Amino acid sequence: MARVVVDVMPKAEILDPQGQAIVGALARLGFDGVAGVRQGKRFELEVADTVDDVVLENIAADVLANTVIEDYTVTRVQVSS
Amino acid sequence: MARVVVDVMPKAEILDPQGQAIVGALARLGFDGVAGVRQGKRFELEVADTVDDVVLENIAADVLANTVIEDYTVTRVQVSS
Repeated sequence: MARVVVDVMPKAEILDPQGQAIVGALARLGFDGVAGVRQGKRFELEVADTVDDVVLENIAADVLANTVIEDYTVTRVQVSS
Repeated sequence: MARVVVDVMPKAEILDPQGQAIVGALARLGFDGVAGVRQGKRFELEVADTVDDVVLENIAADVLANTVIEDYTVTRVQVSS
């Protein structure tokens, strides 16, 4: 089995109201110095060793991310037999 | 400014119905070989250089994560003046 991480973030040109809300909350709570926050999703997948990078790209692009408004990165973090 | 990534994932002993739904969806869509998925959150913060690691820990533990059911990791990914 292999461990794969897919990070999905809103594209830079897309407004992120969740992130903006967190910036405001941090300021109200007294955490100064945080200029920006963007919130996305992180998926940790356990996949069989037969799953190649092309399939992982398809999973990320077709199922996990909405590529109209989100960017994604696929990273293999660990391979053990 | 420094770029900081905070990853928040459900603790291993916590059920993750979102992740389980994704496993089922992938199987129905013909993506075989995915044994498990866990879904969490990824936060990308732009913070001033004056914000030290203790403050970042507090931000992650008190605001971004619910430490009863979630684990978090704080990673500085880039420091530029």
